[in-house]
Amino acid sequence: MKNKYMVLALEEAQKAYKKNEVPVGAVIVKDDKIIAKSHNLKVKTNQIISHAEILAIMEATEKLNDWRLNECEMYVTLEPCPMCAGAIYQSRFKKIYIGAKSNINSNEKIIRDILANSEYNHQVEIEYLNNEKCSKIITDFFSNKR
Amino acid sequence: MKNKYMVLALEEAQKAYKKNEVPVGAVIVKDDKIIAKSHNLKVKTNQIISHAEILAIMEATEKLNDWRLNECEMYVTLEPCPMCAGAIYQSRFKKIYIGAKSNINSNEKIIRDILANSEYNHQVEIEYLNNEKCSKIITDFFSNKR
Repeated sequence: MKNKYMVLALEEAQKAYKKNEVPVGAVIVKDDKIIAKSHNLKVKTNQIISHAEILAIMEATEKLNDWRLNECEMYVTLEPCPMCAGAIYQSRFKKIYIGAKSNINSNEKIIRDILANSEYNHQVEIEYLNNEKCSKIITDFFSNKR
Repeated sequence: MKNKYMVLALEEAQKAYKKNEVPVGAVIVKDDKIIAKSHNLKVKTNQIISHAEILAIMEATEKLNDWRLNECEMYVTLEPCPMCAGAIYQSRFKKIYIGAKSNINSNEKIIRDILANSEYNHQVEIEYLNNEKCSKIITDFFSNKR
Protein backbone atom coordinates (compact mmCIF):
# COMPACT_ATOMS: atom_id res chain seq x y z
CA MET A 1 0.00 0.00 0.00
CA LYS A 2 2.70 2.44 1.08
CA ASN A 3 4.61 1.61 -2.07
CA LYS A 4 1.56 1.89 -4.32
CA TYR A 5 0.99 5.51 -3.34
CA MET A 6 4.70 6.34 -3.42
CA VAL A 7 4.78 5.04 -7.01
CA LEU A 8 2.03 7.55 -7.85
CA ALA A 9 3.93 10.34 -6.10
CA LEU A 10 6.97 9.36 -8.16
CA GLU A 11 4.91 9.63 -11.35
CA GLU A 12 4.07 13.18 -10.28
CA ALA A 13 7.78 13.87 -9.70
CA GLN A 14 8.48 12.64 -13.23
CA LYS A 15 5.95 15.14 -14.62
CA ALA A 16 7.88 17.91 -12.85
CA TYR A 17 11.18 16.55 -14.25
CA LYS A 18 9.83 16.77 -17.82
CA LYS A 19 8.88 20.41 -17.19
CA ASN A 20 12.40 21.14 -15.93
CA GLU A 21 11.10 21.68 -12.40
CA VAL A 22 12.86 20.15 -9.36
CA PRO A 23 11.24 16.68 -9.46
CA VAL A 24 9.12 16.29 -6.34
CA GLY A 25 5.65 14.73 -6.29
CA ALA A 26 2.99 14.41 -3.61
CA VAL A 27 -0.18 12.35 -3.19
CA ILE A 28 -2.84 12.83 -0.49
CA VAL A 29 -4.85 9.79 0.57
CA LYS A 30 -7.88 9.48 2.85
CA ASP A 31 -9.56 6.18 3.68
CA ASP A 32 -7.52 4.50 0.95
CA LYS A 33 -8.82 6.95 -1.68
CA ILE A 34 -6.68 9.48 -3.52
CA ILE A 35 -7.82 13.00 -2.71
CA ALA A 36 -5.12 15.02 -4.49
CA LYS A 37 -1.93 14.57 -6.55
CA SER A 38 0.51 17.26 -7.47
CA HIS A 39 4.07 18.10 -8.47
CA ASN A 40 6.41 21.01 -8.01
CA LEU A 41 5.62 23.96 -10.32
CA LYS A 42 7.70 26.72 -8.77
CA VAL A 43 9.34 27.91 -12.00
CA LYS A 44 6.18 27.75 -14.10
CA THR A 45 4.03 29.62 -11.57
CA ASN A 46 6.89 31.89 -10.43
CA GLN A 47 5.71 31.46 -6.82
CA ILE A 48 7.74 29.87 -4.03
CA ILE A 49 4.63 28.32 -2.51
CA SER A 50 4.12 26.07 -5.58
CA HIS A 51 5.87 23.08 -4.03
CA ALA A 52 4.20 19.70 -4.67
CA GLU A 53 3.02 19.40 -1.05
CA ILE A 54 1.31 22.81 -0.89
CA LEU A 55 -0.36 22.45 -4.30
CA ALA A 56 -1.70 19.05 -3.18
CA ILE A 57 -2.93 20.54 0.12
CA MET A 58 -4.74 23.35 -1.72
CA GLU A 59 -6.37 20.81 -4.04
CA ALA A 60 -7.42 18.53 -1.16
CA THR A 61 -8.82 21.49 0.77
CA GLU A 62 -10.95 22.53 -2.19
CA LYS A 63 -12.12 18.99 -2.78
CA LEU A 64 -13.08 18.36 0.86
CA ASN A 65 -14.14 22.00 1.37
CA ASP A 66 -12.17 22.08 4.61
CA TRP A 67 -8.66 23.20 5.52
CA ARG A 68 -8.59 20.48 8.20
CA LEU A 69 -7.20 17.34 6.58
CA ASN A 70 -7.29 15.30 9.81
CA GLU A 71 -7.65 11.79 8.50
CA CYS A 72 -5.42 12.37 5.49
CA GLU A 73 -1.96 10.96 4.84
CA MET A 74 0.62 12.47 2.51
CA TYR A 75 3.10 10.56 0.35
CA VAL A 76 5.92 12.80 -0.83
CA THR A 77 8.97 11.73 -2.82
CA LEU A 78 11.42 14.06 -1.00
CA GLU A 79 11.74 15.18 2.61
CA PRO A 80 9.69 18.40 2.86
CA CYS A 81 11.25 21.81 3.41
CA PRO A 82 10.24 23.72 6.60
CA MET A 83 7.58 25.70 4.69
CA CYS A 84 5.84 22.51 3.55
CA ALA A 85 6.31 20.77 6.92
CA GLY A 86 4.61 23.81 8.49
CA ALA A 87 1.73 23.57 6.00
CA ILE A 88 1.41 19.83 6.70
CA TYR A 89 1.11 20.17 10.50
CA GLN A 90 -1.28 23.11 10.16
CA SER A 91 -3.49 21.05 7.86
CA ARG A 92 -3.53 18.41 10.64
CA PHE A 93 -2.38 15.47 8.56
CA LYS A 94 -2.39 12.11 10.33
CA LYS A 95 0.84 10.87 8.79
CA ILE A 96 3.46 11.67 6.20
CA TYR A 97 5.44 9.09 4.23
CA ILE A 98 8.73 10.44 2.91
CA GLY A 99 10.40 8.79 -0.10
CA ALA A 100 13.96 10.13 0.19
CA LYS A 101 15.96 12.21 2.63
CA SER A 102 17.05 15.73 1.74
CA ASN A 103 20.78 16.29 1.22
CA ILE A 104 20.56 19.15 3.73
CA ASN A 105 21.41 17.32 6.95
CA SER A 106 19.83 19.77 9.39
CA ASN A 107 16.51 19.64 7.52
CA GLU A 108 15.35 16.39 9.18
CA LYS A 109 15.73 17.77 12.71
CA ILE A 110 13.92 20.99 11.77
CA ILE A 111 10.96 19.23 10.20
CA ARG A 112 10.75 16.80 13.16
CA ASP A 113 10.67 19.83 15.48
CA ILE A 114 7.76 21.17 13.41
CA LEU A 115 5.76 17.99 12.75
CA ALA A 116 6.15 16.43 16.19
CA ASN A 117 6.18 19.56 18.38
CA SER A 118 4.18 18.89 21.56
CA GLU A 119 3.60 22.63 21.99
CA TYR A 120 1.70 22.92 18.71
CA ASN A 121 -1.94 21.90 18.64
CA HIS A 122 -1.36 18.95 16.32
CA GLN A 123 1.35 16.36 15.70
CA VAL A 124 1.98 14.43 12.50
CA GLU A 125 3.43 10.91 12.36
CA ILE A 126 6.50 10.58 10.12
CA GLU A 127 7.79 7.53 8.23
CA TYR A 128 10.83 7.49 5.96
CA LEU A 129 10.54 4.88 3.21
CA ASN A 130 14.10 5.20 1.86
CA ASN A 131 12.93 4.64 -1.68
CA GLU A 132 15.86 4.45 -4.12
CA LYS A 133 13.87 5.74 -7.08
CA CYS A 134 12.85 8.81 -5.10
CA SER A 135 16.53 9.55 -4.36
CA LYS A 136 17.64 8.81 -7.91
CA ILE A 137 15.23 11.19 -9.64
CA ILE A 138 16.57 14.14 -7.62
CA THR A 139 20.21 13.16 -8.05
CA ASP A 140 19.70 12.69 -11.81
CA PHE A 141 17.98 16.06 -12.13
CA PHE A 142 20.80 17.99 -10.49
CA SER A 143 23.53 15.98 -12.27
CA ASN A 144 21.97 16.90 -15.62
CA LYS A 145 21.74 20.55 -14.56
CA ARG A 146 25.50 20.79 -14.01
CA MET B 1 11.25 54.06 10.08
CA LYS B 2 10.91 50.63 11.67
CA ASN B 3 7.92 51.89 13.61
CA LYS B 4 6.33 53.56 10.59
CA TYR B 5 6.11 50.28 8.71
CA MET B 6 5.06 48.34 11.80
CA VAL B 7 2.17 50.80 12.21
CA LEU B 8 1.06 49.92 8.68
CA ALA B 9 1.38 46.20 9.43
CA LEU B 10 -0.75 46.79 12.53
CA GLU B 11 -3.40 48.50 10.37
CA GLU B 12 -3.47 45.34 8.27
CA ALA B 13 -3.87 43.26 11.45
CA GLN B 14 -6.83 45.45 12.42
CA LYS B 15 -8.48 44.69 9.05
CA ALA B 16 -8.16 40.97 9.87
CA TYR B 17 -9.60 41.55 13.35
CA LYS B 18 -12.70 43.21 11.86
CA LYS B 19 -13.18 40.18 9.61
CA ASN B 20 -12.94 37.85 12.63
CA GLU B 21 -9.63 36.46 11.38
CA VAL B 22 -6.63 36.00 13.72
CA PRO B 23 -5.25 39.57 13.56
CA VAL B 24 -1.84 39.42 11.89
CA GLY B 25 -0.62 41.91 9.31
CA ALA B 26 2.48 42.05 7.09
CA VAL B 27 4.14 44.76 4.99
CA ILE B 28 6.95 44.22 2.48
CA VAL B 29 9.34 47.09 1.86
CA LYS B 30 12.12 47.52 -0.73
CA ASP B 31 14.33 50.62 -0.96
CA ASP B 32 11.99 52.39 1.45
CA LYS B 33 8.98 51.75 -0.81
CA ILE B 34 6.01 49.57 0.10
CA ILE B 35 5.79 46.61 -2.27
CA ALA B 36 2.95 44.66 -0.64
CA LYS B 37 0.62 44.74 2.36
CA SER B 38 -1.59 41.95 3.54
CA HIS B 39 -3.47 40.42 6.44
CA ASN B 40 -4.49 36.95 7.51
CA LEU B 41 -7.46 35.58 5.53
CA LYS B 42 -7.38 31.92 6.47
CA VAL B 43 -11.06 31.57 7.36
CA LYS B 44 -12.35 33.61 4.43
CA THR B 45 -10.24 31.77 1.83
CA ASN B 46 -10.52 28.41 3.64
CA GLN B 47 -6.82 27.78 2.87
CA ILE B 48 -4.08 27.36 5.47
CA ILE B 49 -1.57 29.18 3.27
CA SER B 50 -3.54 32.45 3.54
CA HIS B 51 -1.43 33.83 6.39
CA ALA B 52 -0.55 37.55 6.12
CA GLU B 53 3.10 36.81 5.31
CA ILE B 54 2.41 34.41 2.42
CA LEU B 55 -0.29 36.60 0.88
CA ALA B 56 2.14 39.53 1.00
CA ILE B 57 4.91 37.39 -0.56
CA MET B 58 2.59 36.33 -3.40
CA GLU B 59 1.61 39.95 -4.02
CA ALA B 60 5.25 41.16 -3.98
CA THR B 61 6.29 38.34 -6.32
CA GLU B 62 3.61 39.32 -8.82
CA LYS B 63 4.49 43.00 -8.57
CA LEU B 64 8.23 42.44 -9.04
CA ASN B 65 7.66 39.48 -11.40
CA ASP B 66 10.25 37.51 -9.48
CA TRP B 67 10.04 34.99 -6.64
CA ARG B 68 13.42 36.26 -5.41
CA LEU B 69 12.74 39.12 -2.99
CA ASN B 70 16.43 39.64 -2.13
CA GLU B 71 16.49 43.28 -1.17
CA CYS B 72 13.11 43.18 0.54
CA GLU B 73 12.34 43.45 4.25
CA MET B 74 9.20 42.18 5.93
CA TYR B 75 7.39 43.81 8.85
CA VAL B 76 5.02 41.37 10.53
CA THR B 77 2.98 42.02 13.67
CA LEU B 78 3.40 38.49 15.10
CA GLU B 79 6.30 36.01 15.12
CA PRO B 80 5.80 33.87 12.01
CA CYS B 81 4.86 30.21 12.15
CA PRO B 82 7.34 27.69 10.63
CA MET B 83 5.41 27.64 7.32
CA CYS B 84 5.76 31.40 6.90
CA ALA B 85 9.37 31.42 8.15
CA GLY B 86 10.11 28.81 5.48
CA ALA B 87 8.43 30.94 2.81
CA ILE B 88 10.42 33.99 4.00
CA TYR B 89 13.85 32.34 3.76
CA GLN B 90 12.98 30.77 0.40
CA SER B 91 11.96 34.17 -0.93
CA ARG B 92 15.42 35.36 0.17
CA PHE B 93 14.32 38.30 2.27
CA LYS B 94 17.10 40.49 3.62
CA LYS B 95 15.50 41.06 7.01
CA ILE B 96 12.35 40.47 9.01
CA TYR B 97 11.04 42.76 11.75
CA ILE B 98 8.75 40.99 14.21
CA GLY B 99 6.21 43.00 16.24
CA ALA B 100 5.37 40.52 19.01
CA LYS B 101 6.54 37.11 20.15
CA SER B 102 4.31 34.07 19.75
CA ASN B 103 2.95 32.52 22.96
CA ILE B 104 4.33 29.19 21.75
CA ASN B 105 7.77 29.21 23.38
CA SER B 106 9.47 26.71 21.09
CA ASN B 107 8.41 28.67 18.01
CA GLU B 108 11.26 31.19 18.27
CA LYS B 109 13.97 28.52 18.23
CA ILE B 110 12.35 26.75 15.27
CA ILE B 111 12.06 29.88 13.17
CA ARG B 112 15.65 30.89 14.03
CA ASP B 113 16.78 27.42 12.88
CA ILE B 114 14.95 28.08 9.61
CA LEU B 115 15.79 31.74 8.97
CA ALA B 116 19.42 31.62 10.07
CA ASN B 117 20.38 28.08 8.98
CA SER B 118 23.91 28.10 7.55
CA GLU B 119 23.14 24.93 5.59
CA TYR B 120 20.37 26.60 3.59
CA ASN B 121 21.33 28.75 0.61
CA HIS B 122 20.10 31.97 2.19
CA GLN B 123 19.89 33.51 5.66
CA VAL B 124 17.48 36.18 6.86
CA GLU B 125 18.29 38.75 9.53
CA ILE B 126 15.75 38.85 12.40
CA GLU B 127 14.82 41.76 14.69
CA TYR B 128 12.16 41.64 17.40
CA LEU B 129 10.57 45.05 18.02
CA ASN B 130 8.57 44.05 21.13
CA ASN B 131 5.71 46.32 20.12
CA GLU B 132 2.99 46.41 22.76
CA LYS B 133 0.18 47.14 20.31
CA CYS B 134 1.16 44.08 18.29
CA SER B 135 0.90 41.91 21.42
CA LYS B 136 -2.32 43.54 22.57
CA ILE B 137 -4.28 42.98 19.36
CA ILE B 138 -3.66 39.22 19.53
CA THR B 139 -4.41 38.98 23.27
CA ASP B 140 -7.62 41.00 22.81
CA PHE B 141 -8.74 38.83 19.90
CA PHE B 142 -8.40 35.58 21.83
CA SER B 143 -9.88 37.07 25.04
CA ASN B 144 -12.98 38.11 23.10
CA LYS B 145 -13.21 34.66 21.53
CA ARG B 146 -13.52 32.99 24.95
